Amino acid sequence: MGGINCNVVDPSDEEAIRGVLTAYVDFWNSHEMAGLAELFTKDAEWINIVGMHWRGREAIIKAHDVYHRTMFQKVTLAVESIELRAVAENVVVAAMVVRAGAFTPPDGVPRPSTRDRLSLVLAKRVAGWRIVLGHNTVIDERAAPFDPVNSGWTG
Amino acid sequence: MGGINCNVVDPSDEEAIRGVLTAYVDFWNSHEMAGLAELFTKDAEWINIVGMHWRGREAIIKAHDVYHRTMFQKVTLAVESIELRAVAENVVVAAMVVRAGAFTPPDGVPRPSTRDRLSLVLAKRVAGWRIVLGHNTVIDERAAPFDPVNSGWTG
Repeated sequence: MGGINCNVVDPSDEEAIRGVLTAYVDFWNSHEMAGLAELFTKDAEWINIVGMHWRGREAIIKAHDVYHRTMFQKVTLAVESIELRAVAENVVVAAMVVRAGAFTPPDGVPRPSTRDRLSLVLAKRVAGWRIVLGHNTVIDERAAPFDPVNSGWTG
Repeated sequence: MGGINCNVVDPSDEEAIRGVLTAYVDFWNSHEMAGLAELFTKDAEWINIVGMHWRGREAIIKAHDVYHRTMFQKVTLAVESIELRAVAENVVVAAMVVRAGAFTPPDGVPRPSTRDRLSLVLAKRVAGWRIVLGHNTVIDERAAPFDPVNSGWTG
């Protein structure tokens, strides 16, 4: 199992992986769907902040395309932090926090700017590192004081 | 890279992985923290429905323990669906939907029963399949009609 248990990502892999994550945010901000598509494996899956589940690159890009032509037209993401962890040979888990701008979803109820926490699983393919899973959650800042680990809340 | 691209999980692995996921729900429902701990790798990470990030098995269990002695004392989960996909040698991504009972978090605002969508990444270790990442999001049923993929919304 080699270096699996030490969770260390090889420096050359780390550079490539951070490049994919940066490209994700850059393509997102410039609404470049063809660029985004290149970052995912064909079988990739995505779960968004309201729990929608998109199976396959084609579905992920279709959904992003519709939302970027509507509610995300003027929204941008800004990376706050990225943490990488190797979990198996050629598989890395990224924990990324972004600041997302305010927008109004189709239900018409405006959403303020939020901090969002993404899990991204990347696998090394012949063509390089690609995203095989993305899962995104809005950070509820009101809940943070009740975090037993990071705020020491004990009930 | 062998069978990576076909995403098929070996039947014997599938049985073991479904066993881990079932055990997760069973131990959750019976508040058995020692049992839960056995399902995770030491370096596992968890991101909960309000975006808290717990790093390492010890932190995950500490947080679960505090919440199960307080707001989750009378809450149960019921599995609605599980989908498995192999993404690399010895790494499987599970998409699981559960029905979670109503509860009142520390902020005092009652939450109704919800359907939650979990991503779980499992890796095969010497001791067997273990969870290396869990990420959980409440499904917003009001948003579902606006899903470009699963509801055909086009903006």
